[in-house]
Amino acid sequence: MLIKENNIHIPYYVVIFVSKRTNGDNGYAEMGQLMVDLASKQKGFLGIESVRDDELGITLSYWNSLEAIEHWKKHSVHKLAQHKGKEDWYENFAIKVCRVERHSFFEKDRAGKRS
Amino acid sequence: MLIKENNIHIPYYVVIFVSKRTNGDNGYAEMGQLMVDLASKQKGFLGIESVRDDELGITLSYWNSLEAIEHWKKHSVHKLAQHKGKEDWYENFAIKVCRVERHSFFEKDRAGKRS
Repeated sequence: MLIKENNIHIPYYVVIFVSKRTNGDNGYAEMGQLMVDLASKQKGFLGIESVRDDELGITLSYWNSLEAIEHWKKHSVHKLAQHKGKEDWYENFAIKVCRVERHSFFEKDRAGKRS
Repeated sequence: MLIKENNIHIPYYVVIFVSKRTNGDNGYAEMGQLMVDLASKQKGFLGIESVRDDELGITLSYWNSLEAIEHWKKHSVHKLAQHKGKEDWYENFAIKVCRVERHSFFEKDRAGKRS
């Protein structure tokens, strides 16, 4: 999903999660989907974008406040997943909590370009 | 490349570029590498992380100030690439300029885990 900012107002916040996986699934796919479903039900959640290739994965989750991020960080089920992540799923990862200062969105004008 | 924050001090800034490509290469790969090489020579550049799958691409570039980001945005060769991107390479894209509020890094202790 590519998020358009039409309905999101500055300032908002993004958690950047960049990770290198271990080999094998070890229950990762199932838990990953569960975490996305659970995060999206939290107060202050705005959206999520996620990409993984053979080397690296990047997940961006958007929130309307630092408090919402802190609340999700401490969610009991999320904490279990965090523990499992360190034990089994990740060789290494970096987390950055950021404040969005400005944003813009481009969409190709197909009608204009292709006619 | 997964960036470790050992040598990067808060506050710093990240440009989040999320994009959906058009079909075909159209010179994209070559220009993409040129832009990475050129960006990494700019004043204030700290690093870059990039992942693309079949649906979406996410590129994170890190900078030590908003001025450095503004300077790179206005770089003449970069502006040519921006124009070409809108014409040929991207169906749509979103850009977010963010201030990193806090960060952390995890690395698996292989010796401890596997012994």
